[in-house]
Amino acid sequence: MSTSAAPVNLAEKLSQFSELWSQKKVAVLNDYEVKLAKLNGEFVWHTHEDTDELFLVLSGRLTIQLRERDVVLESGELFVVPRGAEHCPVADEETAILLFEPVGTLNTGDAGGPMTKPAEILS
Amino acid sequence: MSTSAAPVNLAEKLSQFSELWSQKKVAVLNDYEVKLAKLNGEFVWHTHEDTDELFLVLSGRLTIQLRERDVVLESGELFVVPRGAEHCPVADEETAILLFEPVGTLNTGDAGGPMTKPAEILS
Repeated sequence: MSTSAAPVNLAEKLSQFSELWSQKKVAVLNDYEVKLAKLNGEFVWHTHEDTDELFLVLSGRLTIQLRERDVVLESGELFVVPRGAEHCPVADEETAILLFEPVGTLNTGDAGGPMTKPAEILS
Repeated sequence: MSTSAAPVNLAEKLSQFSELWSQKKVAVLNDYEVKLAKLNGEFVWHTHEDTDELFLVLSGRLTIQLRERDVVLESGELFVVPRGAEHCPVADEETAILLFEPVGTLNTGDAGGPMTKPAEILS
């Protein structure tokens, strides 16, 4: 990102897509990226062996199921899932989140399967 | 951060301090950290030669002065200042921001001076 880039308005970016479980890249910081996603329902259990993963809830409510407990995030709350910790996000309503993680981190981690989808650039 | 960590409520964390221009660490992601700060007035011109720096405005309004232009960020907007780009944040009202950058990034970058202050852990 050069200094000529425009500011990223999160609400505006969220208005540009409705697809669930599809990560949209909105900014890059060194070798990390900021992604947005909309969730509803349950994802798949998976693990990122090589990286922590940050979830910030922008609207709605997200439960991050861990093997030993559930972490419930309301709007304006964030949580870092440590590398190696198996987790499964679930939302009872449509929920918008911001993710910070290394460029190329796959949504399903080690699990693979039909929900696997590389992040897309949101112009 | 282990899986036993509590979620971070940004509004609650912001209510825990009033000091201006003092970065408070609230989460760690690999070798990066999430920090909060409250700003009002003009900071100092400085550069981070080794890293990009992400600003997300949580409330208020932040102008990031760059040498060639100003970037104005309203609440809910983010911008990445590229490494090597001289910049100077200024706010006309009290403004709360979230920062994402490598652990140990100093607030004044290469500039030093009396505003230099290591980030503090906000429990």
